[in-house]
Amino acid sequence: MLFFTQCFGAVLDLIHLRFQHYKAKRVFSAAGQLVCVVNPTHSLKYAPTRCAAAQASTEQGILPPCHHHEAVHDAQLVPCTCPLFSCPWEGHLEVVVSHLRQNHRINILQGAEIVFLATDMHLPAPMDWIIMHSCLGHQFLLVLRKQEKYEGHPQFFATMMLIGTPTQANNFTYRLELNRNQRRLKWEATPRSILERVDSVISDGDCLVLNTSLAQLFSDNGSLAIGIAITTSKVHSSEAEI
Amino acid sequence: MLFFTQCFGAVLDLIHLRFQHYKAKRVFSAAGQLVCVVNPTHSLKYAPTRCAAAQASTEQGILPPCHHHEAVHDAQLVPCTCPLFSCPWEGHLEVVVSHLRQNHRINILQGAEIVFLATDMHLPAPMDWIIMHSCLGHQFLLVLRKQEKYEGHPQFFATMMLIGTPTQANNFTYRLELNRNQRRLKWEATPRSILERVDSVISDGDCLVLNTSLAQLFSDNGSLAIGIAITTSKVHSSEAEI
Repeated sequence: MLFFTQCFGAVLDLIHLRFQHYKAKRVFSAAGQLVCVVNPTHSLKYAPTRCAAAQASTEQGILPPCHHHEAVHDAQLVPCTCPLFSCPWEGHLEVVVSHLRQNHRINILQGAEIVFLATDMHLPAPMDWIIMHSCLGHQFLLVLRKQEKYEGHPQFFATMMLIGTPTQANNFTYRLELNRNQRRLKWEATPRSILERVDSVISDGDCLVLNTSLAQLFSDNGSLAIGIAITTSKVHSSEAEI
Repeated sequence: MLFFTQCFGAVLDLIHLRFQHYKAKRVFSAAGQLVCVVNPTHSLKYAPTRCAAAQASTEQGILPPCHHHEAVHDAQLVPCTCPLFSCPWEGHLEVVVSHLRQNHRINILQGAEIVFLATDMHLPAPMDWIIMHSCLGHQFLLVLRKQEKYEGHPQFFATMMLIGTPTQANNFTYRLELNRNQRRLKWEATPRSILERVDSVISDGDCLVLNTSLAQLFSDNGSLAIGIAITTSKVHSSEAEI
């Protein structure tokens, strides 16, 4: 009996997911944009990183030191390249994409402009919505994180990282756009390199930040649609252009 | 001796202010936009509003009740029209502008696009930067507020209100834009009517919200430049346009 109840639950979940996908497709199809429905994963933010773990071990004289990222950029022999905080994996930059696909089951999408549809925004923090985005000959990682910087007050942080070096990242500009309920919010910036780690970017607040109330205004039935566009960098207009 | 020291201090302040103004003019002159240097004023957020005071008195049977705003929009005979939280003034909508100019010394600027340059962003919360903006035959109020929603974590909230009714406000769209350090943040929305009160809009978080770290990234030497544009409302593009 329990088995049948669980099966029925799973079928209902699948129907719900398909419904969300079709609904999103209907909403965005007019713009001919690729819509990617992204489900949340728990952000295991309290797990130690490989780098931190290695440093702790070094202090006890067990392992060789964890190199500082900046010192080894040129050689691209970089430990701790998995941008996800909880993952202890180490590897070369070139194999980060396959690591994220295989070990973290993160999807990769093609196209200069896509719509990222994060579902179940109401789920409690910490929570991540992650997708990889392939365009202009490079791969990017979009992370939307729900996190409580101030206890009891979850916020949403969205950023785009290049799976490449900081020098390569400087050649691009990314734009995140929310548009609903007669409100529009746009964030444009140079992507950061994954060598700078998602967690640092988010804890510095150097990304698109949404309070819960704004996130609700931009959400539709618990899902948040974020339009994403990546372009090659022009020289950024100065403040005079405002 | 104390008198001369104070005079010298005042002269230094004036020189500093002129310097900021000329610097801002130099920075923005290329765009031919009007720059308004706005100094902060203390936001007396704990003072009772006239409406709240009237309601408290009503409970004691002293004064007639404070009418609900929505109920009296059509007649435009609205008490509590001063949008500033601490002000107990009541009056018709038509005289709000002169009240704000005369009693609160708030400047009014002409032009569809202006740059609002808020100085001394480092000053402790609560603090307000306020300007009136006249364009398209109406007057608008721009409020930038520094406030601690979460103790010890000040945030900046910026909103544009129409000095008019909610029905009139629906005819416009305003845009606030920050642009500095290879980052750009744009907020577009329908202005709210001042009858809805600045404080409610800010406490609802339905406005441009900046954490301190983002505000610092967009600031130059303690001043934050916000580009403002007001247009008549087209039908807002749907989410499909993202």
